Amino acid sequence: MPTPAQHHRVSPGSRVDLGAIDPARTPGLSGDGDAERARAEGELREHTQRIAAMQERLYAEGSRAMLVVLQGMDCSGKDGVIRHVFGPVNPQGCRVVSFKRPSDEELSHDFLWRVHARVPRRGEIGVFNRSHYEDVLIVRVHGTIDDREARSRIDRIARFEEHLAASGTTVLKFFLHISKGEQRSRLLDRLREPDKRWKWNDGDLAERKSWDRYMRAYEDAIAGTSLAHAPWHVIPADKKWYRNWAVASIVREALDAMDPKPPRMDLDPDSVRIE
Amino acid sequence: MPTPAQHHRVSPGSRVDLGAIDPARTPGLSGDGDAERARAEGELREHTQRIAAMQERLYAEGSRAMLVVLQGMDCSGKDGVIRHVFGPVNPQGCRVVSFKRPSDEELSHDFLWRVHARVPRRGEIGVFNRSHYEDVLIVRVHGTIDDREARSRIDRIARFEEHLAASGTTVLKFFLHISKGEQRSRLLDRLREPDKRWKWNDGDLAERKSWDRYMRAYEDAIAGTSLAHAPWHVIPADKKWYRNWAVASIVREALDAMDPKPPRMDLDPDSVRIE
Repeated sequence: MPTPAQHHRVSPGSRVDLGAIDPARTPGLSGDGDAERARAEGELREHTQRIAAMQERLYAEGSRAMLVVLQGMDCSGKDGVIRHVFGPVNPQGCRVVSFKRPSDEELSHDFLWRVHARVPRRGEIGVFNRSHYEDVLIVRVHGTIDDREARSRIDRIARFEEHLAASGTTVLKFFLHISKGEQRSRLLDRLREPDKRWKWNDGDLAERKSWDRYMRAYEDAIAGTSLAHAPWHVIPADKKWYRNWAVASIVREALDAMDPKPPRMDLDPDSVRIE
Repeated sequence: MPTPAQHHRVSPGSRVDLGAIDPARTPGLSGDGDAERARAEGELREHTQRIAAMQERLYAEGSRAMLVVLQGMDCSGKDGVIRHVFGPVNPQGCRVVSFKRPSDEELSHDFLWRVHARVPRRGEIGVFNRSHYEDVLIVRVHGTIDDREARSRIDRIARFEEHLAASGTTVLKFFLHISKGEQRSRLLDRLREPDKRWKWNDGDLAERKSWDRYMRAYEDAIAGTSLAHAPWHVIPADKKWYRNWAVASIVREALDAMDPKPPRMDLDPDSVRIE
């Protein structure tokens, strides 16, 4: 049976048609709705415990890092993934960075500058809530950059991520794929539920109007940056429990493949005298 | 008559033989020693005034930057170039960064991390006193990295500098080329002159023993990173006045070619009412 990574990973050189991927799919799980969900939630706990344990080994090893990039339309569940998948990891070993509208300081540099400054240290798992990909998405959809500049930036992102990978950072990228209908329902929740209302932003409605252009911009970005060492995953995200389970499964699988090992101590403990 | 840039610039794809370049040459100047020197010192003043004026325009334009990378053996004159060529530039618009032995924090990231964090903002001239090139020089000479890793890093440096260039930063690199005999004489000065003795470092003598290996490492680095948009210049540096004149000439020429222009004001000042 294929692993979640095999289900959702975008092959290098290929192009995804987001319109052809049902955001409500749940591949890799089976059974009726309730049984699937119960199994996903149980396995999520196992996965997150394993992720936390492997991050400790990564830290002890001290030579490699992992960078998880979360992208998706508003309400697609980036915050939810951070809470459910990375919440259980030791916060000293897991650095979450949310990229907002760039500051004047940031805009006065090239677009990768602020991103490079915040990549995880060796031993850490870094999680980007939005990322350098916004620099080929929102600015492209709004016409701040043209197609030519977008292509140039996409190439440069690929080279940058190759550099990170060559420097020992495993890069995993996730596009949380929700339907326009599911976004509507979650936006309505934000309006109606007082403890979610703080997330409301009139701008979100404006971005929603550009939905199709965002999908094309995502397809281009994903096609140009699906690298063997920095793969994209398109995660069906209409069902939150599936989304969390799938991301956790893929992160766990990647950490298992890295197989970090604490360094061998050549010191003989018996030789140490504490006086 | 060729410009200093044409004299000293390394063509993309070519390889320099440092042993074949006399560090005491003074191409582009003529006359006997004293007349040459007087002319160089006079023109240096003109060049630095022009550099300072052009940096102001670069700042007003606010869309591009210049990065000057200074490399060379110990005593080759990196500090001297900073004082004589960039001293006259407005310090608000000129950011000098000296890269020392990396900190634990820096070592816990990829080798380009600390460098990227310190590149000049748009509008600035940034000067690197040593740089990311140390990561393919000293560590290679000492065997901390092998040839394969050095080649990988050299490629990644080239990609990184292409990214900076594509982002609007003109990158100029200078190898200050001194002879082993001239280094000996300057090291003796350090020992003998009390106000220079603070620069003495026993480690310098150790590096001097690896002179030939450094030259090979420099030749490889220069061959792999001589890019049209981030060229290397091999500056004969046994004569300090020639070194300063040549670097200033090349920086001035590059700024003139950039031709920065303050943005046009579309605002009609008469339309503004201050009440």
